[in-house]
Amino acid sequence: MKITLIGAGNLATNIAIALKNAHHQIIEIYSRTEASAKVLAQKVEANYLTELSSISDEADLYLFSVSDSVLSQVIKEFPYKEKLVAHTAGSLDIDLFSQDYAQAAVFYPLQTFSKTKKVDFSNIPICLEARDHKDLLILQSLAESISEDVRLVSSYQRKAIHMAAVFSCNFTNHLMHIADQLLEESHMNFDILLPLIEETLSKLNYMPPRSAQTGPAVREDFNVVNDHLQRLSSNQQYHDIYKLLSESIIKTHREG
Amino acid sequence: MKITLIGAGNLATNIAIALKNAHHQIIEIYSRTEASAKVLAQKVEANYLTELSSISDEADLYLFSVSDSVLSQVIKEFPYKEKLVAHTAGSLDIDLFSQDYAQAAVFYPLQTFSKTKKVDFSNIPICLEARDHKDLLILQSLAESISEDVRLVSSYQRKAIHMAAVFSCNFTNHLMHIADQLLEESHMNFDILLPLIEETLSKLNYMPPRSAQTGPAVREDFNVVNDHLQRLSSNQQYHDIYKLLSESIIKTHREG
Repeated sequence: MKITLIGAGNLATNIAIALKNAHHQIIEIYSRTEASAKVLAQKVEANYLTELSSISDEADLYLFSVSDSVLSQVIKEFPYKEKLVAHTAGSLDIDLFSQDYAQAAVFYPLQTFSKTKKVDFSNIPICLEARDHKDLLILQSLAESISEDVRLVSSYQRKAIHMAAVFSCNFTNHLMHIADQLLEESHMNFDILLPLIEETLSKLNYMPPRSAQTGPAVREDFNVVNDHLQRLSSNQQYHDIYKLLSESIIKTHREG
Repeated sequence: MKITLIGAGNLATNIAIALKNAHHQIIEIYSRTEASAKVLAQKVEANYLTELSSISDEADLYLFSVSDSVLSQVIKEFPYKEKLVAHTAGSLDIDLFSQDYAQAAVFYPLQTFSKTKKVDFSNIPICLEARDHKDLLILQSLAESISEDVRLVSSYQRKAIHMAAVFSCNFTNHLMHIADQLLEESHMNFDILLPLIEETLSKLNYMPPRSAQTGPAVREDFNVVNDHLQRLSSNQQYHDIYKLLSESIIKTHREG
């Protein structure tokens, strides 16, 4: 397929490289920032531009991969309503494309990307949605050329996925930061936790997280819970997080 | 070394097997529950007993690996105050052994254990503490015979480790459960998150969690945060956890 990328950020960069490696042709890269557009264009042997009004009409697919906050503005300025267009945003509805776009779609790879670290796309779930059934088949074929895990997902479901990702990744990472701080206060390094973290997460591959729950809260060992809360009393935020999560674990497991 | 295990639970079982594989001699297994004592004793070719009063005085080390709640009672009933004794509890002080025990110690492997899944001890951090410096050297040599990661850790530090483990593992696992529930409500399976979770955690091997933070809260994308909070409004507990953790992420990163 001939594809034009609208955007040159982390996600756009990773998608463009994966598509090129799967022998698709990236014809143009658009970015407001010339330097970003140029860097990515060179990587995938594409042209680049910084004005949406001069974008070519020759692509089979226009993939919008810009930050959520500017996406609707970029769509407004895009000149070809009759083309196949797709955005890559987990949290945004397909209807961000007005009904004038008969060929609107969503192409959402569920992963966290950085520009420098190359990601293996083959096991990344790609969540697809399209207004037109024929377009869904086209995007499915495109997605399957870079990933073995392609799923049809509604906008409503995609929002649930996005929220679940916030809990399981963003919030999890913040808890790791708190653990890091607690260790640092006692002059220890975070690396001591890595084998335990790895084992905890490897369990998720073969049992539901509910069954894997361990620790003082699920045992209702209030001696330990209260001891920890007391030691955390100098940091209100950590104290409150400990308390709320412990209560939630107890409630979850009492309800059976 | 000749070692007697006081306890036959998950941790005792895993330690006993690792020590036997490292060519130490397990001479006795004590458990209140005869069946547990017998099963473990057979695994490591040891004798077993259910009465502390009849325990042999021939071991070089008595390793107490029973649940936190009964540990102090078991220590009270133990007949040999002049022997090298160590407990394996992350959350308990070395001073659970009264000062009558000149050779008190702690031998704490930082990992989550189950009886059925065999654990590779070689990369598990073992945290040591001892009243007497000579005993520390003995335990260090013992620990190094089963693990490549042996650390000297005070009771105060060990409690910080235990709290950090609660945040990074027990609480993290609960967030995975919430993610699982959110997906289930939209008729999707938890497995869609596994590549994202794996990538999120692999980052911890080469950057501090603070630098790895992503998501709507750290971007202060309040459109998404408020949208998620509204969708969570039917579950007060999940709503409050989302709100508190988002606030904590924002606070952490504003403070710079």
